[in-house]
Parts: sequence; structure tokens; C-alpha cells
Amino acid sequence: MVRGGSATTGPTLAVVAREAGVSVPTASKVVNGREDVAPETRRRVTEALERLGYVRRPRLDATRTPGLVDLVVHSLESSWSAAVLHGVEEAAHDAGLEVVVSAGLNRTWGGRPERGWLDKLTARGSSGVLFNLAELTPSQYAWLEQHRIPFVMIDPAHEPPPGVVSVGAANHQGGARATEHLLSLGHERIAVIGGYQRKLCSSARVAGYRSALAAAGVRHRPEYLRYGDFDEVVAQRRMLELLDLPEPPTAVFVCSDKMALGAYEAVALRGLRVPDDISVVGFDDLPEARWATPALTTVRQPLSEMAATAVRHLVGLMVGQEPESARTELPTRLVERASTAPPRT
Amino acid sequence: MVRGGSATTGPTLAVVAREAGVSVPTASKVVNGREDVAPETRRRVTEALERLGYVRRPRLDATRTPGLVDLVVHSLESSWSAAVLHGVEEAAHDAGLEVVVSAGLNRTWGGRPERGWLDKLTARGSSGVLFNLAELTPSQYAWLEQHRIPFVMIDPAHEPPPGVVSVGAANHQGGARATEHLLSLGHERIAVIGGYQRKLCSSARVAGYRSALAAAGVRHRPEYLRYGDFDEVVAQRRMLELLDLPEPPTAVFVCSDKMALGAYEAVALRGLRVPDDISVVGFDDLPEARWATPALTTVRQPLSEMAATAVRHLVGLMVGQEPESARTELPTRLVERASTAPPRT
Repeated sequence: MVRGGSATTGPTLAVVAREAGVSVPTASKVVNGREDVAPETRRRVTEALERLGYVRRPRLDATRTPGLVDLVVHSLESSWSAAVLHGVEEAAHDAGLEVVVSAGLNRTWGGRPERGWLDKLTARGSSGVLFNLAELTPSQYAWLEQHRIPFVMIDPAHEPPPGVVSVGAANHQGGARATEHLLSLGHERIAVIGGYQRKLCSSARVAGYRSALAAAGVRHRPEYLRYGDFDEVVAQRRMLELLDLPEPPTAVFVCSDKMALGAYEAVALRGLRVPDDISVVGFDDLPEARWATPALTTVRQPLSEMAATAVRHLVGLMVGQEPESARTELPTRLVERASTAPPRT
Repeated sequence: MVRGGSATTGPTLAVVAREAGVSVPTASKVVNGREDVAPETRRRVTEALERLGYVRRPRLDATRTPGLVDLVVHSLESSWSAAVLHGVEEAAHDAGLEVVVSAGLNRTWGGRPERGWLDKLTARGSSGVLFNLAELTPSQYAWLEQHRIPFVMIDPAHEPPPGVVSVGAANHQGGARATEHLLSLGHERIAVIGGYQRKLCSSARVAGYRSALAAAGVRHRPEYLRYGDFDEVVAQRRMLELLDLPEPPTAVFVCSDKMALGAYEAVALRGLRVPDDISVVGFDDLPEARWATPALTTVRQPLSEMAATAVRHLVGLMVGQEPESARTELPTRLVERASTAPPRT
């Protein structure tokens, strides 16, 4: 796997890359014998590998329960998790693997002793772990490394340490696309409701919104930028704040479908209508976007495909193959439904 | 487990019960040493046990992969499955078990060779299996018996063979409750859209509807009874048929939330409104019921609790304890939201 080693198992590939003055993917290419590396670069990496005594991870499958991988999620109660699980299960089936599902992230790692769950993974000899929406602590990363359990993060909450393999959506592009759509309808007073401000996916979507505004020469108004927590209740409050501004927006990009439904409620509470009085664009394209009235225009992130890609990366790591890049981003696309219209004139 | 044995493993408890002229639960009580059995009954069962050479199932946990149970579902793409998985995972965690999830029912059993998947269960030594919405073939039941793999059905599609342990919702009661609610608002022209006609849960809900009508002295009109397939598209068509009747209904009980959303679409297509022009009651109380506009009044079936109950029964079977009754039904209740109103006068 890309992220490797510890005090007892030799240097990580990240350390080797730093020593050689190259990126981790480049060092990984050399280790995997790929052709597309300049000779001088290859020489520097090879020297660093030797100097530091880098030991390549052994193939792990023989020492593990054959055919079982773990999927660890925060909660199983969302259609988000359902889409991820669907993708994981199908791709795992194709790879001849079965999936052990646990919602253990919050339960066992959020305060209570974390070791129980991790120890269970070792005892059973998990072949590999997929983490969904997780934020692991440094000691958890270290534990996984030390036990040489391959793992891949699906939409990690934060930038993972260098070399950790992750799969996500092109959030910046999606945020820009949502905003461009509203601009193209003639909106200029476009607000944004982000999720948790410090979460990777949320900040990237808001950044995409800002670059689309900038590219169109539309001034960014600080009062049009609000953050929620990816849930409906707070999003409804933020939307009410926006609607109550002296000059309220005519359109809002809401950074998740669930939050967009909260925004719908706020619009109804003020006696207004979507899209007649205000346009709303969501993000995710979960089933609820289609069920909402009016059906929600949203940015589709391909959750099942992201999950399937993560499985394929995990299968690679299990046999010692590192992906070309530690972070894979799958494209997002706008799904136009009925929640956007030109602004009232 | 309740359902036991085959030619090679001795008679099932069902055979013993028949021989003794008692019910399977009663025979089970005797086998499990329970006190609440009349002495004469106990004597008859004990004699039958001896005469037939009944061998009680061994405790299975020692011979199986410790701590792993299987959940087999049709599809992971519905919020129905998500609710079941949530309940299974939590209850399994409480019991110190982990859950292997597969959507294999359609995939491997629907035409293609079924043995691959079943063999995988044996090879890994599954401690037990939960089937969600499944309809097993006689040979699949036989296979599970023969390999002494304990299993429990969650909301089985059809009446399972005698002695098979299953957990479901009180569908008849729920159908009656939905209909009583519409009657209490003053409706008399109440239609029903069922799911698959031959499915257990669907026929029970429609039967509940009919008994509520009968109890209220309201005539059942055959043209007000339509069947769909539990999905939106066909339900929309059935609703259009109902709306186009010479004397259309003023209220409809739709036997699943997903179908109710299809009914909503039909109402909108005819330029009508829920609940002003027609009242709609669903069944399930999935998240989409809450998100719909107007929010759907529906009958809640406690999916996560049903799943958790199934896990507890499975844990019992794994250590040789049979539940008191092969079929457990959890109560349903009406959740009133915004899709019902008195009929227009």
C-alpha cells in the first residue's frame, strides 16, 4: 500500500519520496516498476529506497481471512450510505469478496476505547478496510499501518496524510457547475449554504462557487455565504437568515440535498415558492432530490461509482499494487430538474 | 432451530409435533424444557420425540466462523433495505456479532446457478443467515436445513414452510388502521392500491382495508381495488385508472410509500391536488414519506425493530433456543401528516 511502515517496519514510501525529492505517486511508480518515470528521477528514488532500507509490503491475502473486507461507516440510516454500500457490495462481489458492514465509526471511536473494534479487525484478519466519510486519528492511522491492513478512504472528512489512498467526487468542479447554471439563468444574487466549514468536500464546493462567480465577474457578498452541518434543521435556519436579508438572494446553491430540503422548508415558512421566488440547487443527487416537490436540480456525485473505485483500489493494495495517484476524483454533473428558473424581473 | 432435520439428520420438530398432535411451538417448549405445558401434552410430545428418534440440533457456534452472520437482501438501493440493515447491524453489534451483507438474492438465485453462493456460506461457516424480503425455493430451504445453518426471514415474500422463523409487521392491522383513518375523516369512496397481489404483506394489508370497510358498513367496490408491483410507475398508472373512473374515489390507501409517490404524480398529472381533491395514505414510513410534498400520512412499520428482533431470534437459534412462535409480528401505527383531509362536499 502507498502509506507504509512505522518504527518497526521500516520507512514509509512518503519518507522515501521526501528523501528523493519526488512525489509519493512518482516514488510509487518506481517501486512498482512502471516505465513512465524519467531515468534521473528513477535513479534518485532507487538510491533513496536503498539508503533508507525501504521494504515493500508483502502480499497480504495469504495471511488474511480470504474474501472478507470491511466497510466502516458513520451511520447506516442515510441514503448516502445506502448508495455507497450498494457500490461497495457490487464491486466486491465482482472481485470475489464479501463485505462486513459496521457502523462502528461513531460508536467505538468517538470517545470510547477504540481498540476493541480495531482488535476485532486483526483477530478476524480483515483483508482490507474501506472507511466512509471518516476522520481517523493519527493513532488510528498508525495502528492500521502497523498491522499492515490495507485501507482506502471514501470521501474522507479531511485531507488524509500523504500517501493514504482515497476516492472522492470533483467537489470544486461541482460547486462551480451549480453556480454557472444559476448564472446562466440570469441570477446575480446567488447565495451558498455550505456544510461543515472545515470539511474537505464542503470547502471545495464553496470554493467552486466562488470561482464561478469570479469568472463571471459577479461580486462575492460575504453575507451570502453561510455554513450549516449537512443536516436539514440548521440549513433551514441559514435559509431563513438569507431570506430575511435586506436584499435577499434570488438563488441559493445548497451544498447537500438534505440541506436543500431544509432550505425548501424555510422558503415555505416565508410563504414563498421554489423556483418562482427563489431558485435552489442541491448537491449529491440522492433519491430524495427526485422525490422533493419541486424535484430538486442538483449536482450528482457518483457515490456508487466512487465506492466501486475504492474497492478496486483496495483489491490492488491487497496484492501490493498502489494506485497511480493517492487521491482519485470522479466527475460530478448537473442534473436539471424543477427547482431553478430565471429570477423574477 | 424450529425447522429441523432431513433424511440424514432425523425428523424435524414439525414432524414430531404432527405425530404428537400438537403445534410446533408447543413441541418446541417441551424440547426446551419450558414449564408452561400441560402434563398430558408433555407426555405425548416426549413419546413422539422418542418414537421418532428426534435429535436436537447441536449448538452451532463452535463449528462456525465466530461472530459473523449473513444478511441477504434483494437490493441495497432502497431506503427499505437501509432501515433493515441499520436494525440488523445495531442488534448484531449488541450481540457481539458482525454482519456480512450481500445483495445476492436476485443475483445468484434468480435463474443462475444458486449453489455458488450457498457453498460460500458453508465454506466460510456462516453462523447464521437473515433473509430480507426473500422467497426461497424448497431446495434452498432443504439446503439450509441439511447444512444446519440457522436462519430467520425478515418480512418473507410468502408464507414460509411450517416452523421457519420469521419476523414481519402487523400488516392486516395497519391496512385496517389506514382505512379507519380515512373513514373517520368522512370518506366513503375509498380505493386501495396493493403491491404484488400474491405477496404476503400486500394481501394482508388489502384484507385489513376490506375488514375496516366492512366494520364501518361501507360497501366494497371491486373497481376500487387495484394491484401494482410496489414500485412507482405502475402505481401511477393504477391511480390514473382510479381518477378516470366515472365515480372516482375521494381517498386512496396505497400499500407502500414508494407507490404513494407514484399516486402523487398521477394526481398532479390530472391537475388535482393532495389532499384537497383526494386523500392519500401510504404504508412503510420510509424517509421519502416525510420528504414528499405534502408530507405523506402513512402506516409505520418498524423495520429496524423487525430487523433487530430477527437478529435476536437468530442468536437464539445459534445456541439451540427456538422462539416461542415461529412468526413474530410487530405492531404498526398510523403517522398523520398532511396528505389526508375530509372529502370535498
